[in-house]
Amino acid sequence: MELIFLGTSSGTPTKTRNVSATAVKAPNAKHWCLVDCGEGTQHQILRTKLSLNSLQAIFITHVHGDHCYGLPGLLASAAMAGRTEKLYLVGPAEIEAFVSAVCTLTELYLPYEIVFIDSATLNEHRPELELSVTAVKLSHRVPSHAFSFCYQSDERKLDLEKLKAADIKPGPHWGELQSGKDIMLDGETILADDYLLPKAKAQKIIICGDNDQPDLLSDEIKSADVLVHEATYTYDIAQKVGPGPMHSSAKIVAEFAGKHRVDNLVLTHFSARYQNDTGSSPSILDVELEARAHYDGNLMLASDFDHYRLGKNGVLGKL
Amino acid sequence: MELIFLGTSSGTPTKTRNVSATAVKAPNAKHWCLVDCGEGTQHQILRTKLSLNSLQAIFITHVHGDHCYGLPGLLASAAMAGRTEKLYLVGPAEIEAFVSAVCTLTELYLPYEIVFIDSATLNEHRPELELSVTAVKLSHRVPSHAFSFCYQSDERKLDLEKLKAADIKPGPHWGELQSGKDIMLDGETILADDYLLPKAKAQKIIICGDNDQPDLLSDEIKSADVLVHEATYTYDIAQKVGPGPMHSSAKIVAEFAGKHRVDNLVLTHFSARYQNDTGSSPSILDVELEARAHYDGNLMLASDFDHYRLGKNGVLGKL
Repeated sequence: MELIFLGTSSGTPTKTRNVSATAVKAPNAKHWCLVDCGEGTQHQILRTKLSLNSLQAIFITHVHGDHCYGLPGLLASAAMAGRTEKLYLVGPAEIEAFVSAVCTLTELYLPYEIVFIDSATLNEHRPELELSVTAVKLSHRVPSHAFSFCYQSDERKLDLEKLKAADIKPGPHWGELQSGKDIMLDGETILADDYLLPKAKAQKIIICGDNDQPDLLSDEIKSADVLVHEATYTYDIAQKVGPGPMHSSAKIVAEFAGKHRVDNLVLTHFSARYQNDTGSSPSILDVELEARAHYDGNLMLASDFDHYRLGKNGVLGKL
Repeated sequence: MELIFLGTSSGTPTKTRNVSATAVKAPNAKHWCLVDCGEGTQHQILRTKLSLNSLQAIFITHVHGDHCYGLPGLLASAAMAGRTEKLYLVGPAEIEAFVSAVCTLTELYLPYEIVFIDSATLNEHRPELELSVTAVKLSHRVPSHAFSFCYQSDERKLDLEKLKAADIKPGPHWGELQSGKDIMLDGETILADDYLLPKAKAQKIIICGDNDQPDLLSDEIKSADVLVHEATYTYDIAQKVGPGPMHSSAKIVAEFAGKHRVDNLVLTHFSARYQNDTGSSPSILDVELEARAHYDGNLMLASDFDHYRLGKNGVLGKL
């Protein structure tokens, strides 16, 4: 699977980071999904190879503006780009009311269907996507969810050892076997299933909304390859700010990921006080150092337009 | 007065132009006003010296998304930046309902008061601003207005000829006279009013919403120094598109400005089909050439971040 970060700032945009939005897609897939849609997400998309016409579903983790104020403009621009394909929109019930109010009050007429699914019922009403998706409840000032994307490739490779042992030589029938078709060879039936390796392990990436209790992901994380979680503050700033905003520090997320031996951890949604310029303080480097002190896996701090691919070896790499 | 263009594209953002937003301010004024607030306006503001704390009023010309979808995020970011001063919001009644719905559905709590004024009643309920504002009805698919900003400087310069004729020599009393204070000189009362020139002529800039009938501005244009008007299309494209969108071509706006001998004309709100790259066709140069063929005054085609100042000589210049 691939991830493209379109916004990595918390609350308000900065000159280098937009507010939340993350694209996720299966390898070589036609369609893609968007998690959160802060203001200016359509502008960010203009600077990538992503197309609004191939966007299959939008997931809004929670109703705060920095995660959804880009929805009206993105929906309008998709309409102007001639979209006709239905679009899934998953989020809290208020998001459906928000889109509906905007369409009415600003005379926005969409030439495509929006199929709304309440996040609270997503696990019972899954849309048919190229990726399967599960919602996990989080803890924030308003109802917030993580979305766990799972990709199971249908591809099965040929078992070359077994073919060699059975003296089945290379030829067009290898292609037939790989496509799952049984063949006749020298009057004998060769079952494809006998010469195909099992499917590759499913890949799972969890993309979280705002959350101050990473432990709520304890079950879902067991089978996950990648955790994308907010780290709005460093621990000391989180203590100063107090529990009111209900955000996570780099420390508590890293400790959670360390405890559960998560292979790949991507932190995002940084408070605007952490500037990229490491000469100033506090800096984004402070967030990174704090996370590294509590997690020794493959750690990334997302920047806008970072493009990651989860390899078949389970390692997330930056493209 | 000064103008800063924050968005000059019609309908949808492009890589070089954001959707509509224009800042207007009096010379050396503390506050500024914003006309329209398309998605991403707060992002554009981040790249200027304008501050959300000194924004005094927002005028929304009409309800279409490319003119108002940036409102929720801008209001939220002003709140996060600690704004407490009241903010005037002028626009169609639907804009008040839009902001109200967004605040409720996305749990946005603003720590400052929004004073809403319906554009239709603006001329009877003018807010107290550093600029006086008049609304003019336009013609578009939805109710649309122009906002005509007038700046009258209180400054009166000393009449140096008259001072010389009366043999009133330079000294601290000149400053007192200029500030409007009468003085005693050699036992004689000198009235300030007798030695001050009249105030400079008021400056007027009209910033229009979407409109297919420039003639509706025939009265207001008489006393205006600058007309900022949409020129969504060139004439031939406007003919192809048909009257449905209810936009203006460069030709009809330029003809109107020429007929009324408007000193300064700024065209904006260009269809995304006109790329800046003059190698491609149609290009923004086509819009310019068409306008020049029908108007021989001071013509500008606005680009994002263009900063103009209307000089005391009545000429609009790019800073």
